[in-house]
Amino acid sequence: MTLSPSAIELGLGANVRRSPFFEATLRDGLTTATVYNHMVIPVSYGDPAAEYDRLINGVSMWDVAVERQVQIEGPDAFKLAQYLTARNLSNLKIGQGRYVPICDYDGWMINDPVLQPIAEDTFWLSIADSDIWLWADAVAHERGFDVRVSEPDASPLAIQGPKAVDVVADLFGERIRNFRYFGFEATDLDGIPVIVARSGWSKQGGFELYLRDGSRGTELWDKVKAAGQPYGIGPGAPGAPERVESGLISYGGDMRHQILRANPFEMGLGKFVDLDGGHDFIGRAALARIKAEGPARRRVGVFIEGDPAFPGHVVPLVKGPDPVGHISTFCRSPRLGRTIGLGLVASGIANDDQGLAIVVKGQAVPVTLSELPFI
Amino acid sequence: MTLSPSAIELGLGANVRRSPFFEATLRDGLTTATVYNHMVIPVSYGDPAAEYDRLINGVSMWDVAVERQVQIEGPDAFKLAQYLTARNLSNLKIGQGRYVPICDYDGWMINDPVLQPIAEDTFWLSIADSDIWLWADAVAHERGFDVRVSEPDASPLAIQGPKAVDVVADLFGERIRNFRYFGFEATDLDGIPVIVARSGWSKQGGFELYLRDGSRGTELWDKVKAAGQPYGIGPGAPGAPERVESGLISYGGDMRHQILRANPFEMGLGKFVDLDGGHDFIGRAALARIKAEGPARRRVGVFIEGDPAFPGHVVPLVKGPDPVGHISTFCRSPRLGRTIGLGLVASGIANDDQGLAIVVKGQAVPVTLSELPFI
Repeated sequence: MTLSPSAIELGLGANVRRSPFFEATLRDGLTTATVYNHMVIPVSYGDPAAEYDRLINGVSMWDVAVERQVQIEGPDAFKLAQYLTARNLSNLKIGQGRYVPICDYDGWMINDPVLQPIAEDTFWLSIADSDIWLWADAVAHERGFDVRVSEPDASPLAIQGPKAVDVVADLFGERIRNFRYFGFEATDLDGIPVIVARSGWSKQGGFELYLRDGSRGTELWDKVKAAGQPYGIGPGAPGAPERVESGLISYGGDMRHQILRANPFEMGLGKFVDLDGGHDFIGRAALARIKAEGPARRRVGVFIEGDPAFPGHVVPLVKGPDPVGHISTFCRSPRLGRTIGLGLVASGIANDDQGLAIVVKGQAVPVTLSELPFI
Repeated sequence: MTLSPSAIELGLGANVRRSPFFEATLRDGLTTATVYNHMVIPVSYGDPAAEYDRLINGVSMWDVAVERQVQIEGPDAFKLAQYLTARNLSNLKIGQGRYVPICDYDGWMINDPVLQPIAEDTFWLSIADSDIWLWADAVAHERGFDVRVSEPDASPLAIQGPKAVDVVADLFGERIRNFRYFGFEATDLDGIPVIVARSGWSKQGGFELYLRDGSRGTELWDKVKAAGQPYGIGPGAPGAPERVESGLISYGGDMRHQILRANPFEMGLGKFVDLDGGHDFIGRAALARIKAEGPARRRVGVFIEGDPAFPGHVVPLVKGPDPVGHISTFCRSPRLGRTIGLGLVASGIANDDQGLAIVVKGQAVPVTLSELPFI
């Protein structure tokens, strides 16, 4: 994440929840953090270049307990899960997760969790930064579904980077090398209950350990740290620049319902909208209409001239005097040596269109469009 | 708010929304901030004692844009608003707000906003830290209410303290002295559209100016700052210790659905639960049952021996070896010269019961119960 130009101390009052790993991250040199899903999440340990290098070339461990779980449990759990997402959930298998965009009744995205089938009657949504449990609970009650919506004791610790698989194999055995992406298994680590999942918010490969006992965060953190020593593990955090290079979506960063709406077709997620499978879901009629009309915008990357500072908010994308889209975030790419960003552009604009610019603090800065991912 | 023992920098990525007043708060010396409703909120400007003194004895100005508004608009707006809260909304008058606890279907509180009737068919909920728009939107659609749920461009700037009324009278005229609590009026300040409300999250009196054009935050901030100069105005922020002394409720701090549930009877809000008015609302059956059985816990203050540091999470309240409740926050009270806290205790425990303690980092610290507010 881009830091503010002026260093502000993070105030941690009673309303900000601490992660089970918080004490361990403090001890291991946490310098920068933010709040996500009402909980502290590390941003940096003071050496962004080393943290980036570990993620790209080695292995990094992240406190991502903020990926809170919304548990849907009961006889109608599948019915509710299916009604919440445009993605067709038939052939769902216990132990194999699926990325499920969640839309409101108008087809705008309100979260993009991974759905994890824990048992026949139990599903978890591993959520981005919005209170989806409120949505799921209201829908469940109003429709009379026989389910309980709650938050389980489950806090992910991510192990990411090309060497993550070796660390996790050393911890849990060679079989984890055969996990498919979003595959997971409930197990334990020397008695600490965890779910091991092949997942994580980077494109460098890795796993997430869902700690199932919030009182044992430091214990799990230290076991991962020890197992990772031979591979040069160190602490890190999700965020730009790797996620921008990889074109990963951030609900909250790239779109947020109140300020920057987008539908799944615009976000390049049309393949997850199943209008033919016959299942009913929230937003179906709106998404059918959007598909028929063709989405108004599409997701793009931009190469940005020079190295302007990200101002902390979405910036307009213009073609001459005309607004043609927006860029939601940008940063310096260490691997490309260029400034790159993510955004949405009007469907009529082609990637090789000339004369495009973003407007940063009143100044037009030339940009060219790019396919995603950048790398 | 209590700061963490170790200073952590606040990371401000694209997913953290900036307030319209953010630039002005930075310029005026913001040193500490946190995130609330996905948006930055100031915590301190580096001199907590002076900030407290201004609030108690003078006048303080606060960026509380994080109090986001959930707008309910349309022919069924009243129906939805009424269905969302246990409080009876008959006799609601445009221009006069009301505090409305919002509960889930089991009677647990999920927010405690102020409802503002803006027009016959338009209501705002000025919310605490949870995404109530998701709740309201899901309920509206599933019940087929003819309403639109959205977020208006409205960002509160609070002016709090005994001299706040003088500042606001100088800005808007003497008539504002006659506003009842939660009374409000749409007007403008030299062309800047605002709603002036007699409200604010302190017991020191004051007003909130709801900025209706998010591009004019610095302008409004500076006008308030200038008008407040004769009264010694300065920047500040809501939070402990004043709110603990005053016994104000913090959804997110005192309770949060996922980690620390409470119902309105337990929180001392039983007078707002109208089971006799005949109106239907979410949680009605559960709240009727809770009332009939008598709530299991009640809200209390505690005087805490010594000056232990708040560990950042709820702590157990015990009587000898037995758990009898919890304390959700505590801090030093400047006016009382004692450490005080807020929590819930089992109904069987009386205020003069002896042998009570809280458990902080494994240590029992003696406490005595107190009525609320402390002051």
